[in-house]
Formats: sequence, structure tokens, C-alpha cells
Amino acid sequence: MFERCEYLTRIKGVQTRMAAHGLGALLLTQEADIRYLTGYLTRFWESPTRPWFLVLPAKGLPIAVIPSIGAALMAQTVVEDIRTWSAPNYSDDGVSLLTSTLRDVAGSDPIGTPFGIESHLRMPLGDWMRLSGDVTISTDHGVMRAARMVKSPAEVDAIRAACQIAGGAFALLPEIARARTPLSSVFRGFQMLCLEEGADWVPYLAGGAGADGYDDVISPASDAPLEVGDILMLDTGVIKDGYFSDFDRNFAVGKPSDAATRAYENLMIAMQAGEGALRAGNTASDVFYAMDKICTGGAGGQSAGRLGHGLGLQLTEGLSFTADDHTVLEEGMVITLEPGVSVSGGAGLIVHEDDYVVTATGWERLSPKPPEQMVRLDG
Amino acid sequence: MFERCEYLTRIKGVQTRMAAHGLGALLLTQEADIRYLTGYLTRFWESPTRPWFLVLPAKGLPIAVIPSIGAALMAQTVVEDIRTWSAPNYSDDGVSLLTSTLRDVAGSDPIGTPFGIESHLRMPLGDWMRLSGDVTISTDHGVMRAARMVKSPAEVDAIRAACQIAGGAFALLPEIARARTPLSSVFRGFQMLCLEEGADWVPYLAGGAGADGYDDVISPASDAPLEVGDILMLDTGVIKDGYFSDFDRNFAVGKPSDAATRAYENLMIAMQAGEGALRAGNTASDVFYAMDKICTGGAGGQSAGRLGHGLGLQLTEGLSFTADDHTVLEEGMVITLEPGVSVSGGAGLIVHEDDYVVTATGWERLSPKPPEQMVRLDG
Repeated sequence: MFERCEYLTRIKGVQTRMAAHGLGALLLTQEADIRYLTGYLTRFWESPTRPWFLVLPAKGLPIAVIPSIGAALMAQTVVEDIRTWSAPNYSDDGVSLLTSTLRDVAGSDPIGTPFGIESHLRMPLGDWMRLSGDVTISTDHGVMRAARMVKSPAEVDAIRAACQIAGGAFALLPEIARARTPLSSVFRGFQMLCLEEGADWVPYLAGGAGADGYDDVISPASDAPLEVGDILMLDTGVIKDGYFSDFDRNFAVGKPSDAATRAYENLMIAMQAGEGALRAGNTASDVFYAMDKICTGGAGGQSAGRLGHGLGLQLTEGLSFTADDHTVLEEGMVITLEPGVSVSGGAGLIVHEDDYVVTATGWERLSPKPPEQMVRLDG
Repeated sequence: MFERCEYLTRIKGVQTRMAAHGLGALLLTQEADIRYLTGYLTRFWESPTRPWFLVLPAKGLPIAVIPSIGAALMAQTVVEDIRTWSAPNYSDDGVSLLTSTLRDVAGSDPIGTPFGIESHLRMPLGDWMRLSGDVTISTDHGVMRAARMVKSPAEVDAIRAACQIAGGAFALLPEIARARTPLSSVFRGFQMLCLEEGADWVPYLAGGAGADGYDDVISPASDAPLEVGDILMLDTGVIKDGYFSDFDRNFAVGKPSDAATRAYENLMIAMQAGEGALRAGNTASDVFYAMDKICTGGAGGQSAGRLGHGLGLQLTEGLSFTADDHTVLEEGMVITLEPGVSVSGGAGLIVHEDDYVVTATGWERLSPKPPEQMVRLDG
């Protein structure tokens, strides 16, 4: 958890945005939103059973309306008003407590909750209907999304630390992966390396391996062994102090083909093109077009749908590098550049990703500098 | 992924339940529900950006309405009709494609989606409102919850495998944890042990350590060192082939106090009481009361809210061992017993958890037999 003043600043920042839309209260149900305003960090969200609610008034500290099992941990945060019930409760799982809290806080002013892209409703729809029958809740006008998009120095430090950990694990990969190692062993061993390097946990690992790239970047590992000539890609998100890294590395098993070598070189050119456009004042769309020109010759995108995105409390959050995202880049935004290129025009893709923070003068790479050529694994 | 017939059986089972409620289609947005019917397994759900939809007709195979980035992986499942769009799309993130699919499939019949406890809406509320303006969607009458609650032999095997892995890691814990080891190192090292023992990944680890038990079972690790006299508890959920274990173990750092020893013995008596009531035909409530009699002398529960729960595709799912859960136990249900007792009546708690499947003749413990006394870590 950060210093208390970090959360007070965030709370104030969101309340300023709320005031611009006349919101009397904000209802939050998701882990990242609740943690953003309080620092409440637990892996217990893995259990879907209990809902958790945070109510942010127009002024003052947020109010937690949570299952009693979480009260001791919530009491360590900035939150002072913690209202609990013993969950699960089949007849009223916090709904009446939440209803009265929202009424207390908002009076007759509008209540907002995240409605837009990336937001989910982390409570049962049946309970939402019941709640909506008693209090009117509408969009938060994107105030949480906007507030979270620009990171504080403390947040940037945490993401940098996560990136260094993942970078350390990637540097050690040749020790555990070579021709004939099953992909599932590579995945398992890589996660152990991330922990050894200091990750608190490893929420995300995906990847692929194939002779001329891979057609799928979101699969879990099969038991198929690596083969000479394969390109192996691992894409990981590790957690340090509650913040994510999110970048990948490509490895050549033995000597890569000329086509794969050229594709990787092209990918590095696409990264440089993205970096060239990455500065405060440009839009996300500008960065997309700079990379897409190299990746597809300017076709306007690929099936993956974007060439990078924001990150922080979540593996992916905030802006997307697409043709249609006109978010203006600001100092403090943390993003990934994630272009992909096809290998010799075939179905096989290779994808590279690095993490950056937008600075006053341009950008700083938070992940380690990528190798100019693919690192070779023993054949 | 299991054999094709496993998914066909599940699909048929859910459709039989749908027919009983006259549902023409089911809309699913959550990972576990979509995976239950298809076997679609990816850690990409960690990214909140893209919504994923599965539409189950009254007859025939489910239809996937998903971002194109997932098409290659979905094509490996039983699903044949895969409708994609390039996501994220800020003007229409799959909503019109989903609307037309639901209309095609359901005609004028009712459409259901999970509305009850543990279900969330994994799509933006704004898009849900838009969808609901075009097609009427109401409760699924709990058909997904009911179907998932009774496990197939293949599911029980997967959960048993996950439990054996976590059990192996617990057996090795004394090698990495002793007096003066920081709790954060214990957590990191334990996750490495889980991977070494064969876990695909480790989505959940929580725990606590304190002189007379702990007051919080959901915290992440601090850097505080273990001290002689502490009781250390680790509660983990590891994944093997997409299925969870969920159980804990308590360890004594050095020689435990008499009060802690007695509390642990009492906890084992509570487990035996739970096991004594755990059989097909009894209710969840029966099992709760059997344990609560030992834990609180019959006070009717503690602040944690329940004394165990179902598990499977999720860390916690299905029934809860509470006074109010009248679910009738059936052969094939996989559950945890998770009683807690206070140490000498103070604020400190110790909690024990094991995993079981209800069988034709009683139960089988899926986690290894717990030690009769707390395992000691070096002081």
C-alpha cells in the first residue's frame, strides 16, 4: 500500500471529475476501482461468491459496504466508515445496506457507476435490478477510467519494478527452455523464474511456439516439445505491490529462418515507429497509424484489434492503440506498444510488446531494452 | 480439455434444465460458464477489455460471439458457429452481433442469463442496457449454477490432481519456512513449490501468521518475519487442467502453545463432525450445524459467513455451508469443509480446510489426510 496522501489525492481527483458531472455519489463494484481509491489489496477477489461495494461521496472519504470477512483488512486503508454484513446471505446479500448507504450519501443527487468499456458489474444482475428499483444509478461519465489513466510517480515506480522482475525472468529463460522442452514445462519454469525474481504472483502467462511464428497469442501451454526452428513467444503479466507488467519476448529455438529474422527486424522497426509517435499531445490513434504503416503497410489493423494499450492496476486498462481511439497522450500515462507482423506474408505472426511511461520530454521504457535480434535457445 | 462427449453431455444437461423453464436461449458472459460448456481455456480473461459471449440454443451446439483474437482457440472446442468482431470497437463492441444472434436463436422464446449469487455481468452496463433495449433477457432460473454443482468423473479427477499438487507443496513447506523467514518469502516460495509439483498456475494464495492465530484469512503477505510461537496458515487454490484445489494448512513455528494445540485438536473434531454429516441426502445446512456445534457451541456461525463451499472451475462456487443453504447433497458434488475456531476464546482464529467429493456411500477426501497435530517449522 502507498502512503495515505496518495489515496487522498486520488479520491480528490475523482471527486473533482464527479463535480463536473454533478454526481452525488459513485458506486464501485470492481477490484481495480476499489483498490485505486483505497489500496485494498487481496487475492480473495478470486472467489466470486461475495460482492464488495465502495461508495464515494461528493466530498470526504469513501464508505466500504463489504462482507465482514474483509473488515480487518479494509480497516488498514484510508476508509474509516466500514459497513459490513455476514456474507453470503441468500435473502439480502448487502443490497439493503448498500441502498441505504447510497441514499444517505447522494440524497437526491445523481449516482454514477462505471458503464463504459472494460467495466463489468461485479454483483448479481438480480441484485442490481433490486437496487435499481430503489435508487437510480446511471453512468459515471467515465470518471474512474479517466482518473486511472494518468499514473502517479508511485504507480510508475511499482509498474517499473514489475517490469524489471519480468525482464529478469526473460533473461534467465535460456536456462530452462531449449529444443525438446515441452511448452508446458517452459510455462511452469518461467513462472517460477518470475517468482524467484521477486514477483508477488503471476496472474498472466500466455504464448505460442511455431516454425514460422504462431497464430494464437492467448493460448495456455500444450505439452508439445519445442523444436529447432520454432519461434517461442511468452507474454506475461506479473504483479509487484499490486501493479502489473505486461510485455513479451520472442526466442529462436536454434538458428531462426531468414524469414523469421527479417520479420523480427521489421517488428523492431515497428516499435521504433511507435516510439517516434509516443509523446504527450499526440493521440493514441497517431501511435497506431505509425506502427500500422510498418505492420500492414497501412491496412488499418489486424484481427488482434489493437497495437497496444494502457496498463497498471489491470493487465490492460485505459486507452487502446487503434484507429478509433483519439485519447490525447499525457505525461504519466503508462502504456504498451504491441505490434505484430506476419512472417513472410503467411498465417504465422510474431508479436512484440514493451511497456512505457509518457514523460514531459517523450517516453521512458519501463521494460528492459529488447534484444536487437531474437535470443537463441539451444537447438 | 476433456473429450468432446464430456461437453456434449454438459450442453444436453443444461438444455434439459432450460426446457423445464421454457428458455429459448441462454446468454453467458463469464469465464467459468463459457468454459463449462466448451472447454475454452485461456488466461486472457485477465484482460478486462474485451467482452466474450456464448449463446446456448434450446437445441444444438452453443454459438460463440467473440473477439477475433480468440477465434483460433475457440475453433479447437466443440463450438462450430464462431461469430467474431475486431475488438475493442468503441462504437459497437459486439452488441449488434450478439443482438442478432440472440434473435436468430431464441425467436420469441424467453432468453435467460445468470442472475443469482456468484454471477456477475462481464460486459459493460452501458452495452447491457443497449442490448436489453432490443431483446428481453431475464433470469436463467439458476440452470447454470445447478448444472455446474454436480461434477462428472473427469472433473473430479482434475480437482483431485490439483489437490495432490497443493498437498505436495504443503509437505515441502518446512524446507522453505522457519522462524525469521519473512512471510512474503514464504508466499513466494510456496507458489514456486506448487509450480514445481505440477500446478499450471497459482491463482490464489492467502494466509496469516500470529502468536495465537490470525484475525484475517484473506490478506496478502507482509514482509514481517515468522516468529517462534506463531501459527502460520496458508490457503491456496492451484489450477490443474483448468480445475481448482482449495484448502489450507496450519503450521506451528517452534513449539505451539497449549492453547494453540487444543484449538487445532478442536478444529480436527469439527472436521470430523462435518465429515459425519457429509452424505447424499443431507443438506448443506445439516453439515453447517454439525460443524458449528463444535466451532461456536452452536451459536449459528461466525463473521466469515460460512464453513465451506463448493469448488471446481472456480475457487468457490455453488453451495455454501451456512444455516440458510438447504441444497440437498448429491453424489458428485465437490466441496470444502472449512471450520474455524478461536484460540482460547480470544480474537485469534485458526481455520482448517479440506476438499471432498460426495460419493454413493459417503465421501472421498480429495486433499491429502491432514496431520493430527500441526506440523512444526524450525524455531
